[in-house]
Amino acid sequence: MDERPIGVFDSGVGGLTVVKEIRNFLPGEDVVYFGDTARVPYGNKSIPVIRRFCLEITRFLEEMRVKMIVVACNTASALALDFIRRQTNLPVVGVIDPGVRAAIHQSTRGKIGVIGTTATIRSEAYQSRLRRLRSECEVYAKACPLLVPLVEENLLGAPITQLALEMYLQEFRDLSLESLILACTHYPLLKPLINEFFQGKVQLVDSACETAREVAEVLKARRIATFPDRIGSEEFYVSDSPDSFVAVGAPFLGRQMNRVFLEPVWQRDVAITG
Amino acid sequence: MDERPIGVFDSGVGGLTVVKEIRNFLPGEDVVYFGDTARVPYGNKSIPVIRRFCLEITRFLEEMRVKMIVVACNTASALALDFIRRQTNLPVVGVIDPGVRAAIHQSTRGKIGVIGTTATIRSEAYQSRLRRLRSECEVYAKACPLLVPLVEENLLGAPITQLALEMYLQEFRDLSLESLILACTHYPLLKPLINEFFQGKVQLVDSACETAREVAEVLKARRIATFPDRIGSEEFYVSDSPDSFVAVGAPFLGRQMNRVFLEPVWQRDVAITG
Repeated sequence: MDERPIGVFDSGVGGLTVVKEIRNFLPGEDVVYFGDTARVPYGNKSIPVIRRFCLEITRFLEEMRVKMIVVACNTASALALDFIRRQTNLPVVGVIDPGVRAAIHQSTRGKIGVIGTTATIRSEAYQSRLRRLRSECEVYAKACPLLVPLVEENLLGAPITQLALEMYLQEFRDLSLESLILACTHYPLLKPLINEFFQGKVQLVDSACETAREVAEVLKARRIATFPDRIGSEEFYVSDSPDSFVAVGAPFLGRQMNRVFLEPVWQRDVAITG
Repeated sequence: MDERPIGVFDSGVGGLTVVKEIRNFLPGEDVVYFGDTARVPYGNKSIPVIRRFCLEITRFLEEMRVKMIVVACNTASALALDFIRRQTNLPVVGVIDPGVRAAIHQSTRGKIGVIGTTATIRSEAYQSRLRRLRSECEVYAKACPLLVPLVEENLLGAPITQLALEMYLQEFRDLSLESLILACTHYPLLKPLINEFFQGKVQLVDSACETAREVAEVLKARRIATFPDRIGSEEFYVSDSPDSFVAVGAPFLGRQMNRVFLEPVWQRDVAITG
C-alpha cells in the first residue's frame, strides 16, 4: 500500500482528460497534475526542447513525492518517454502503448487510422508500435495541427471546426477504417463531431480511458495502490496563470478545479543523467 | 556613427516581417534577430510570464552588443514594453505606437479597427493609445486567435482561412471602417485575403513598415545610425530548432536565411531590476 500521489503531466490542459479517467477509475488515489501552460503547445517543437521541458517537470513531480509518472501528452510520450524512463527511478506510463493496444484489440482486419499533432505523427511512434504488435496492420496517419487551437478556443460547435475535420479526415472517408486513434489529449472533446463525420462506422480509440486502465495495472503489479475505501484528492500546478487554466480546463476535466497553483518549473537547474 | 547591430525579437517567426522592412529601409544596418520558438506563441499567455521571457531575451541581446531593441511582437509590445524600458539602458521601440500613428494619419473620421491575438486585444494597448491620440476615435477591436496557426500552417489559400476571416471580420463589414490595424506580425501575409474581404475599401495598416520608419527616426535622433554606403548583415537566433525556423520563416522574410543559431535564453539567471 502506498498513499503517495500519482503524478500526471501534459503541455497544457489536454492531460486533464487523462486525470478525469484516472479519478473515475481509481477514486482512492491522489493525483498531482502539472500543465506546462507557459510553453504550450509542444506539438510543433523539436525533440531536444521537448525532452528538456519533460525533464524539468519530472524533477518537479519527484519533489512532490509522487509514486509514478503518467505522461498524459501524446507529443511528449512520442518523443521523450524512453528518455524520461532513463532519468527517473519511478514507473513511467505514457499514452501511446495503451492506445495502440486498444486499437489492435478492436480491429479484426487491422485497418487503423491515427490523428495527432505534427510532432506526434512525424515521430512515427504510433505507426511503428502498431506495426510491431501486428505486422500486417494497415496504418493511416494524419497530422491535424489546427484541431488543438480549435478545441482550446471552444469552437466545437462552429462551422470552422466542421470544415477543419473535413479537411483533415477527407482522405480517411473511403478507407473503411475499423478504428481511429485520437492521438492527442485534446481530441476526446471532438468525439461527437468525428463520430458524425464517419457516421458512427469507425471506432474511436480515446487513449485517456486506456491509460487509466494501464495505470491501475501498474499500481497493482508493483503493489503501490493506495488503501481501499480511501477518498483521493487532487492538486494542479501550472507554469502560467492558474486563472486561465481553471477557465480553459473545466471542459477537459468535466468539472471545476479547486487547488490550482503556479509553478515555474524552469527555475530548477536540471542535469540529464542518462 | 555606430556600427553595432539593431536587436529585433519576437515570440517566433512573425517578427521577420519587421526585419524585412528594416533591411529594406536601412540596408546599411546589421540586424540580430531572436525568435523564441521554444515557447511560441505568446498571444494566449499571462503578463508575468511574457515579461520574464522578454527580460531573458533583452539580456541576450545586450550580450550581443546591440545598439537598440525592437520588440517586433505585438503581444510583447502590448504587455511588456514599459517593463523592458525599465530593465535596459538601450532605446526600445515597439510595434504599437508606429501602427497607431499610421492609422490616425490615414483616417479622417477616426473609424479604426484593430485585429490581433487574444492577449494584445485584451490588453487594450491599441484601443487606449488610439483614444489618447484622438479622443473622438471610434475603435473596433477583435481577437483572432486562429489566424496565427493558419498562417504558420501555410494555409493561406485554403477555404478554412477564408472561413476564419469571415468568422472574425463579419462584424466589421458594415461599419465603414477607414483603416484596420494588423496588430500581429503574422497578419501581413493575410493582406491580399483581407483586402479581398473588404473589397479594397479599408486601408490596412501593417505595423512592420511603420516600425522600420520609427527605427530610422530613433537612429537619426540619437546619432547612432551606421556609416553611409555600408552593407549590413544579419544573424538569427532561436530557442528551438534552427531547421524548422528556416523552413517556416522564409515567407515572412521573403527570402532564405543563412546564419541561424540555437540560443536557449532561459539558461541565464535574470533579475528584474525596476
